[in-house]
Amino acid sequence: MAAARAFPPIEELEAGLVAGDRGLLSRAITLIESSRAEHQTLAEELLRRLQPRTGNAWRVGVSGVPGVGKSTFIDVLGTRLTERGSRVAVLAVDPSSTVTGGSVLGDKTRMDRLSRDPHAFVRPTPGGDATGGVALRSRETMLLCEAAGFDVVLVETIGVGQAEVAVSHLVDTFVLLALAGAGDELQGIKRGIMELADVLVIHKADGDNAAAAERAGAESASALRFLHHGRDGWQPPVLTASAHEATGIDDVWDAVRRHRAALGSTGLAERRCEQALHWFEAAWQDLLRREFLLNDDVAARLPVLRDRVRRGERQPAAAARDLLARGKDPHPPSA
Amino acid sequence: MAAARAFPPIEELEAGLVAGDRGLLSRAITLIESSRAEHQTLAEELLRRLQPRTGNAWRVGVSGVPGVGKSTFIDVLGTRLTERGSRVAVLAVDPSSTVTGGSVLGDKTRMDRLSRDPHAFVRPTPGGDATGGVALRSRETMLLCEAAGFDVVLVETIGVGQAEVAVSHLVDTFVLLALAGAGDELQGIKRGIMELADVLVIHKADGDNAAAAERAGAESASALRFLHHGRDGWQPPVLTASAHEATGIDDVWDAVRRHRAALGSTGLAERRCEQALHWFEAAWQDLLRREFLLNDDVAARLPVLRDRVRRGERQPAAAARDLLARGKDPHPPSA
Repeated sequence: MAAARAFPPIEELEAGLVAGDRGLLSRAITLIESSRAEHQTLAEELLRRLQPRTGNAWRVGVSGVPGVGKSTFIDVLGTRLTERGSRVAVLAVDPSSTVTGGSVLGDKTRMDRLSRDPHAFVRPTPGGDATGGVALRSRETMLLCEAAGFDVVLVETIGVGQAEVAVSHLVDTFVLLALAGAGDELQGIKRGIMELADVLVIHKADGDNAAAAERAGAESASALRFLHHGRDGWQPPVLTASAHEATGIDDVWDAVRRHRAALGSTGLAERRCEQALHWFEAAWQDLLRREFLLNDDVAARLPVLRDRVRRGERQPAAAARDLLARGKDPHPPSA
Repeated sequence: MAAARAFPPIEELEAGLVAGDRGLLSRAITLIESSRAEHQTLAEELLRRLQPRTGNAWRVGVSGVPGVGKSTFIDVLGTRLTERGSRVAVLAVDPSSTVTGGSVLGDKTRMDRLSRDPHAFVRPTPGGDATGGVALRSRETMLLCEAAGFDVVLVETIGVGQAEVAVSHLVDTFVLLALAGAGDELQGIKRGIMELADVLVIHKADGDNAAAAERAGAESASALRFLHHGRDGWQPPVLTASAHEATGIDDVWDAVRRHRAALGSTGLAERRCEQALHWFEAAWQDLLRREFLLNDDVAARLPVLRDRVRRGERQPAAAARDLLARGKDPHPPSA
């Protein structure tokens, strides 16, 4: 176990990673994901060294509820891209899984071709208890992939609400997959997600579904107009695609490229700058909360107060002041 | 000044407020809004005593960007309600104004009739630096109004993004006002706001605007279908109204009543219970952040770190760890 945990010297990690060694990239990501203090210091130093080599990939989020066909879609799209000379990294964000539990990409056979493709790198991100924490590590993993020379990073997220919002703060272009419903409506679009989409794809538009997908696409295009109406000079297109029949995939990537062109280098720089600030604010508040919750009195008091607030016995603000008082006093009177 | 700041004994405040004395209600709200520790203790005790008398009003948020006609709309709607025997309280949430600066309702003449109506109570909420803090005080102010016998509380919010989200956590029914644009589209709908609407009103549907408002209403109804598709068993209606011509106002209130009926007593209890928990979590995290930012080293370091993160010189996570280390050590080494 101890041997398995030992990391190569930082110079070796850096050089191997820059040379595109996928084994060392994996080791570096494991270092990033470690919660041990000495690993965090090492990871920080590694990121500092690699910083000048980051930022050169196009970062694309691919989202949608379970069953929408994200993995198959990414498998087909990613293979197309590597065939054309791209190096493609696939990361997954799944804040709902536990630290020890599985990951969204645990079953790698779901990305059959891509996981065996020498120009692709498929890496599941272990889950965690805080969306901010997990997504932050995904961000740093993304930077490592960029330093390793991957020019496209696809960030897959499982559809659990907050994860999509977190991923939208990570990527340059956000692709949302949805399905046509029985009527003209869309299935699998959750509150607050649709308007994050830079490109909306009605997936599984094949066989008997094709006609319904076309209708749902037309209806949702008008809905999207209301949500965006020209924000950032970009009107999100609504496309239909089928990874199963390999149709519409090129059109999706074409839309991603057009979005990239519309954003321009200034727009991209601004977006990434805003994102970095967002993660800084999220990260320090996340750390502050975690440390506060390590206090034994706070940890004991929190569920009691939640219960009182839920039952209407205590006002939220008063309960909050009570909790903070616990956190401050290391030895509260037993009275 | 000292005399102006003295509050009546708590028994007097409680009794006067329950009897519907608007002067004492105002004094109690000022107490709630005070940041002085002894006032907070008093306010907490007052809320505790009044708790059994709260919760009986229907809480309605009225939102929309500046220029959409919120104040005129509330003036006309509120007057209709008092004419029918309701007692109406109007609060405003404006997190964008400074503590010392004005308030959205500073110019009370904008609610000409309602502010002179003996059955209405119009109270601006002073702004603050934190959305959570301001909205939390609005929540407690709302409870005081309920204890004072108001059976309708209208919460006006100025359109600055986060405020609408905060208000949606305060109210039972969220009414969103919008305007028809030059084409068939809506004006003044911002990201993430439209889907909060329980009732969408195309306002200023009068004169030359009437036809465009009808068209925009039909278009946006289909957009709303995509966003909601039956959530909570309620499909948000899209209505047109004009406070200027006093048309459509009754229909809006009718929609609010139908929403209330659709929610039912169980749905309402659940919603309010979720809201209380939301405010508890928001409140303790807000307090924790504020106290952390009171640390001199943290306050000095934060803008420096933000700047480095913005310029890409420092990774967000590393900068966050740096900030937290400052907060922990009361005397960091000068090196």
